Amino acid sequence: MKGIFITIEGPDGAGKTTQRELLKEYLEKKGYDVLITRDPGGNPISEAIREVILNKDFTEMGYMTELLLYASARAQLVKENIKPALDAGQAVIADRFVDSSAVYQGIGRGLGVDTVYKVNEFALQGIMPDMTFLMDLDAQEGISRKKNQAELDRMENEKMEFHQKVVDGYRMLADMHTERIVKIDATLPIDEIHGIIVGYVEKKLNL
Amino acid sequence: MKGIFITIEGPDGAGKTTQRELLKEYLEKKGYDVLITRDPGGNPISEAIREVILNKDFTEMGYMTELLLYASARAQLVKENIKPALDAGQAVIADRFVDSSAVYQGIGRGLGVDTVYKVNEFALQGIMPDMTFLMDLDAQEGISRKKNQAELDRMENEKMEFHQKVVDGYRMLADMHTERIVKIDATLPIDEIHGIIVGYVEKKLNL
Repeated sequence: MKGIFITIEGPDGAGKTTQRELLKEYLEKKGYDVLITRDPGGNPISEAIREVILNKDFTEMGYMTELLLYASARAQLVKENIKPALDAGQAVIADRFVDSSAVYQGIGRGLGVDTVYKVNEFALQGIMPDMTFLMDLDAQEGISRKKNQAELDRMENEKMEFHQKVVDGYRMLADMHTERIVKIDATLPIDEIHGIIVGYVEKKLNL
Repeated sequence: MKGIFITIEGPDGAGKTTQRELLKEYLEKKGYDVLITRDPGGNPISEAIREVILNKDFTEMGYMTELLLYASARAQLVKENIKPALDAGQAVIADRFVDSSAVYQGIGRGLGVDTVYKVNEFALQGIMPDMTFLMDLDAQEGISRKKNQAELDRMENEKMEFHQKVVDGYRMLADMHTERIVKIDATLPIDEIHGIIVGYVEKKLNL
């Protein structure tokens, strides 16, 4: 079995984690050894970096600092988790990856998607997702869902204008990379979304 | 008064902090408004990143993660402290800066000095030191001095072979940038080293 790398992207509150868990169960039933992870995070070092990034007291954080911090957490996640899992033939499902930086830092912060990929090139070791599912949701709806769940972190605390840029950025990215990114309406019922994802994964893996 | 940026480099235990304090006193007597800082560190965000970098439990940290973390701490230090101070005409004296990454990550870790500068380009906003004093000390001597002071951090805990590469790297860097870097024998008496530094600073600033 060859390893496969699947990422789930989308704004906060779009239901990424739920779909990650459902896809994990499905792939395990099909006999895959599945690693689920999240970016930033997934190991003690990247989780420590995540805490710095999302600390809501760090309102002075520069956009370039933010971009470099995400890249550093991702470098560790690739080195310590994703690359070894793929080399061992596992299926890896990640909640966010480099597309998030393209959209949040490249478009939302205005650093430019090119700059984001140039910095992340040092982190990725050439590893990009085989398939990406974009949970597409209006900005307002995503943040309302989050507010009902927990206290907002530094990124979630951003203005609605920022979240709107993120949603627009995701849609643009999906249009640019139709060979890899599947955009799914995140307001559909959970089981229906799972069904759509499974359809694409079955086709890709010839299951 | 035009701002001036002075860095003090060298292996751990070479006496950088002592010389930074003495130079600060001297420049203040000459009428300068002086900001002393350290890299990584100097503000709450960069200090939080420093804690991640130097955490001695993080033995799994990849070299690229390390390089990106140093760059992120430096990006914040430039944005929040160094650039505003220089713009206001202050003298900035930093304990370490990008030369440390060139030597520790570029040469010590073997990532290459070019890679280090490419990553750091995103952090520096074009700011480089006007003068750099390299406290030159044999690797063995530096680490012995540190061991007597405190528990060693993740970088200080490295093998002697690594520290030797760092010392050699510093000497190479100083030879390559004689227009900016002054190499000083760190085994000289504290006052004598201070005198040498003051000589160069007076000349540079026409004091």
